[in-house]
Order: sequence, then C-alpha cells, then structure tokens
Amino acid sequence: MKLHFRSLTTAVLCATLVTGAALAGSHSAEGNKAVQARKALMGMVGYHTGLLGAIAKGEMPYDAAIVNASAANIQALAAMERATLWIEGTEQGAVPDSRAKAEIWGNPDDFGAKFADLEKAAAAISGATDAAAVGAAMGPLGGTCKSCHETYRGPEN
Amino acid sequence: MKLHFRSLTTAVLCATLVTGAALAGSHSAEGNKAVQARKALMGMVGYHTGLLGAIAKGEMPYDAAIVNASAANIQALAAMERATLWIEGTEQGAVPDSRAKAEIWGNPDDFGAKFADLEKAAAAISGATDAAAVGAAMGPLGGTCKSCHETYRGPEN
Repeated sequence: MKLHFRSLTTAVLCATLVTGAALAGSHSAEGNKAVQARKALMGMVGYHTGLLGAIAKGEMPYDAAIVNASAANIQALAAMERATLWIEGTEQGAVPDSRAKAEIWGNPDDFGAKFADLEKAAAAISGATDAAAVGAAMGPLGGTCKSCHETYRGPEN
Repeated sequence: MKLHFRSLTTAVLCATLVTGAALAGSHSAEGNKAVQARKALMGMVGYHTGLLGAIAKGEMPYDAAIVNASAANIQALAAMERATLWIEGTEQGAVPDSRAKAEIWGNPDDFGAKFADLEKAAAAISGATDAAAVGAAMGPLGGTCKSCHETYRGPEN
C-alpha cells in the first residue's frame, strides 16, 4: 500500500496526550498543517469569489456554468467539517501563520453559524442570469466574509 | 461594497476571447490562479489522507470525529465542480506549476469518474470503528489517488 501520506510528528502526538484532545496544534512546522489546510480552504473561497466578482464587474464575460460552479464550490467549502481544520491549539500566536482568534474555540456555535451564513449567501448566487444579478448577490456574500473576519480573524502576522 | 476580490487580468480576458472559452489559462501569473486553486484542493485531500493514515498507522489515537470529518471532507473535495478548476489552457507547460496532462480535457468523463471513485472510497471510511478498519479502507482510497495521478498527472516540474 503506497500512499502519499504526510506523516505526523511525535510532537503532535505528545501535544495530543497532554491536552487530552484527539488533535492539537504544536509549535512545530508539522503542527502547522491544519493552519495550511484551512488557508487552502480560504484560498479556494477567495479564488471563486474572485471569479464571481470579475463577472459582476464585467472583467470576465458572464458564463452560467462558471457562476453556478463557483457558487456550488463556495457552498461546499463553507459546509466542510471543521473538526480537522480549526483544531485546538492552533490559534494565532500558538503556531506560525495562524490568524485564528481564540474566540473561535469559545464560541463554536457562532463560528459555525458564520459558515452557514456564507453557505446560504453562496447558494443565493446559483442561477443568477446575468452579471448584474451576480453583482447584487455579491454584497451579502461579502458581508458574511467581513462579519466572520472581523470577529474571528486576528491581524496580519 | 468592499470585497476581497482578486481581480483578473486583461491577459485572461484576451485569452478568453481568443479561445472562445469562458475561461482560459494564460502564461501570466494571474492565469495560474486556477492551478493554485486546484493545488489547494489536492493539498486538502492530502492533509485529510494524512490524518487518516496517521490513525491507521497508530501515530495518532483513533478518534471517530476526526475519521468521519476527514472522510466527509475528502468526499466534498472530490465532488467539487471542476469547471472553475481544470479550465482549458492550464495544462502542464502552458502555465507555471501545472502538472495536469492535456488528456484531462480530452477525456472529461473518465476524469470525472476518477473523482467519483475517490468520493466513494472516502465515503467507505466513514464509520470505521477502529484504526484497523481505517487502515483497511485506506488501500482502496490510495488506489484511486494512484490511478488518477498515473493517468492524468505529469512529471514534477
């Protein structure tokens, strides 16, 4: 069985035993993998939001397939399970590159509600029949990004 | 409306007009955004496969929530719409960093079937009740990765 596993370090395992959580961050580069994975998620949200924004602004021609695929992918990203991504011990300051505020782990329900808002805003873009309709639906979408970032994202590192 | 758009370049728009496709890659760094987005997707698959592999190998304690969240996230990633990610003109050699073989665009149904296989293999991991069960389900999962990479991924750049 030859797989492309990225092996996890003993550091992560030790941190796990200490905290009692199934997963925990560490100060090591290995412990930072969860941060990179959620940055990948946010990067994909940003990429698709960029496509929709370019269509809304007339920088790209309207294309129903691209609009609907972008909306669907943002929905899927917003609906991802967060247990493997926003793991305990990976807040800003604890691991490199993280901008996650500790409040995320204190308010998991509200944090989840922010993603549900993003999911709903993305769903509302599906079926937009022209660039203006895409643009009209971008306001609420951007609002959900802003709301979550203001509450749960720390300053740039 | 202040959004975090990444504006697309005129280069992309020009390429679009030339090829007649709604989206097309270009040799510019901007045209490479789709490549980076699909690398983000693959990175997230790799991250979650790594978690499952670590559990299977006893490097991390078995945790049902992590197993199921990893499986669910791989399923969601495999099911993503590919229209915005594997866009025409972003094959290996045409844009930086790409390892996508041109065959992807010649065999879209088979390429899609590979992702459906990954989705099914990930679904089969949900509910694995111990590390051994996770490990047993990793073989077929790794097989789907290997099968797609052998057919549709070019050599390292």
